[in-house]
Amino acid sequence: MKINHTRLLADLHQLAEFGGLEPGVHRPFLSPQDLEARNWLLHRMHEAGLDAQIDGIGNVYGRAPNVDQSILIGSHIDTVPNGGWLDGALGVIYGLEIARACIEAGASVGPGVDVISFADEESAYLGMAGSRAFCGYLSDADIGAATREEGPDLREALVEAGYGGRPFAKLDLDRHVAYLEAHIEQGPRLEAEGKRIGVVTGIFGIRRIRVYFSGQANHAGTTPMRLRKDAGAALIEFCHELRPRLEAASGADGVWNMGQVTFHPGTGNVVPGSAEVLVEYRNQSVDELDAMEAEIQAAVVMADGRNGVAVSASKPGGLAPTAVDMDIAELISIAARGRGQVPVHMPSGAGHDAMVLSSQLPIAMLFVPSIGGVSHDVAEDTAEADILLGVDVMADAVLALAEQVGRNPR
Amino acid sequence: MKINHTRLLADLHQLAEFGGLEPGVHRPFLSPQDLEARNWLLHRMHEAGLDAQIDGIGNVYGRAPNVDQSILIGSHIDTVPNGGWLDGALGVIYGLEIARACIEAGASVGPGVDVISFADEESAYLGMAGSRAFCGYLSDADIGAATREEGPDLREALVEAGYGGRPFAKLDLDRHVAYLEAHIEQGPRLEAEGKRIGVVTGIFGIRRIRVYFSGQANHAGTTPMRLRKDAGAALIEFCHELRPRLEAASGADGVWNMGQVTFHPGTGNVVPGSAEVLVEYRNQSVDELDAMEAEIQAAVVMADGRNGVAVSASKPGGLAPTAVDMDIAELISIAARGRGQVPVHMPSGAGHDAMVLSSQLPIAMLFVPSIGGVSHDVAEDTAEADILLGVDVMADAVLALAEQVGRNPR
Repeated sequence: MKINHTRLLADLHQLAEFGGLEPGVHRPFLSPQDLEARNWLLHRMHEAGLDAQIDGIGNVYGRAPNVDQSILIGSHIDTVPNGGWLDGALGVIYGLEIARACIEAGASVGPGVDVISFADEESAYLGMAGSRAFCGYLSDADIGAATREEGPDLREALVEAGYGGRPFAKLDLDRHVAYLEAHIEQGPRLEAEGKRIGVVTGIFGIRRIRVYFSGQANHAGTTPMRLRKDAGAALIEFCHELRPRLEAASGADGVWNMGQVTFHPGTGNVVPGSAEVLVEYRNQSVDELDAMEAEIQAAVVMADGRNGVAVSASKPGGLAPTAVDMDIAELISIAARGRGQVPVHMPSGAGHDAMVLSSQLPIAMLFVPSIGGVSHDVAEDTAEADILLGVDVMADAVLALAEQVGRNPR
Repeated sequence: MKINHTRLLADLHQLAEFGGLEPGVHRPFLSPQDLEARNWLLHRMHEAGLDAQIDGIGNVYGRAPNVDQSILIGSHIDTVPNGGWLDGALGVIYGLEIARACIEAGASVGPGVDVISFADEESAYLGMAGSRAFCGYLSDADIGAATREEGPDLREALVEAGYGGRPFAKLDLDRHVAYLEAHIEQGPRLEAEGKRIGVVTGIFGIRRIRVYFSGQANHAGTTPMRLRKDAGAALIEFCHELRPRLEAASGADGVWNMGQVTFHPGTGNVVPGSAEVLVEYRNQSVDELDAMEAEIQAAVVMADGRNGVAVSASKPGGLAPTAVDMDIAELISIAARGRGQVPVHMPSGAGHDAMVLSSQLPIAMLFVPSIGGVSHDVAEDTAEADILLGVDVMADAVLALAEQVGRNPR
């Protein structure tokens, strides 16, 4: 199998022209730019010799011909508004190039390579709609409920795109042996460590708790300090106390964010009567998520009633952590070392379609560095050498996996 | 001089019907309700025997007849939107009743009592426009610049009201010997101490500093904690550190508020890239205001650059503290004790027209308790017995002052 670097880069740059902003890409799911890009991708799959079609949710799916089993490689080509050119596109074009190179290399005894670009990963209508449909997790009612403030709803937009009424491409456990996804890191860690390949060890679970502070709004000039029930001051102290608690409970890689803070009424001359903060915390381990949650609850109990301010917390909501198949991850590590690299084993802090697939298939992910850690922004980029190294490592790992599967067919 | 409690209460309740909400009053300056109230007040002044008119800015001014000198008593009858029934109205009707009682008591050798209701204290167009015009601090350009997002501008509204083109009533240093203003406390202190009369020792100066935190917005899942430049976390620590500093520097009565906090972009899954907090601090003493300001600046210096977040502060803006005439304040104290009360000597945390007058005349203020410390709200109220005690104390103090002035005419 021979990966063609020139062709890979040409495809990536051509895809970036759909919704291209120079720099950056604006290609929200089912936008005119996105529909053109889907047609282009479909055409490129056909040219590669794949049995390709666009399904009823907008997934662009190319099946390797003449095989009973396949390794599924994919990601998504839709972008956030004014997003970057690589994000999900990188993983889709990696899949296209590897599948194409496989076909060019001729028939093998092992599995082939299928490629898929999942619909609406970025949630223009309904986040990860494509992978959910592929795995059988998307009902007709879900689609009907995907409405928007402005513009057509999901069902209407699918009809307008010409996809309405088509069947969904479906995960086939007889055919699909694993799902692999390459992605830009979307964080600064590889760059900070001077490394070029990340092997994903799991995808963070996410939980969110909203903490409410209820005091008494009062005139900020006439109310003596000792008679105030200052919800804003209570929030400041709570957040200050929570930090070291989360630090201790989060393990090596766990992260958290207090990114949304509101004071009511929010004016300089009124003592805040109420306030709230959204605490989001992520971890690869359910135990550590539980430990972080326990610290938040303990901090709430400690703060409640202090200085006349009642403190309470919402029920936690979120997503469970996703496990990757460590055997396949190890094949990626070996492939990286075979290319002279020391891979970084790291969690994925962001969500990916692989999370959805993981409940039914072994999954694995590979990261290439994000320059400056930037993503979901027009400035998003990855060094060309890293893009090319990434596809080589991925291809080596796919070959190794195909050989394993070929030796042990189901 | 005989204060008529029944008449005072009747006037207060009648005035509360203009814009009355049951409970509360909605009577913003130059609203139809406010214009009716001004005409009613003018009529009541005429009935009392005062030489009364409404001037070119909307001040309703009633002059005592047949005197060369006068003690000016006043406040304002405009309210905040959906405000309370007493706020400034109490001080105006106290003035009306005391002036009326003076006229009824017959000619005296000392000064008479003038009454004034100042225009737009609550800043529907231009805060304290009436007292500023009265003191010669309001230019035609100031009026022209008082525009609003919606509805007519100040100049246009004054013309519509029929006030446009009239001269302003003017402070006359040959006539006016002092300005006295009674007001509800607008705070909880009298109630908390179980006292019924507050003697104001000064009006707080107010300063405001806006503190800016500039970090780096980042993905809250993929950015390791140690690589973040979290502007929100920096703000939390800054506010936490500032509190004890201000506590130490503010003296016995100084207050501060951090009532306005903003995180950008303000979503749960993005590390805040920038943040800001408005620190408002009030004190009766310029030295203590300076000391509080020095603590804020020191906290900014300490925080600046920590964890990669730049911290800077705006130039402080605000109003200087206002001194009251302690001799007149002492007359109020004596009057309170004469009525069996132990007065509380306390600063005014809120601003009043007396601030403007203080640059040219001796001023003094009297507070009656606010139930629950509430003001600028429909729930604002004061016990009837306290309303009546307040006017008696005020009248006693005015008599004592008039006697002093009569003994020592200019």
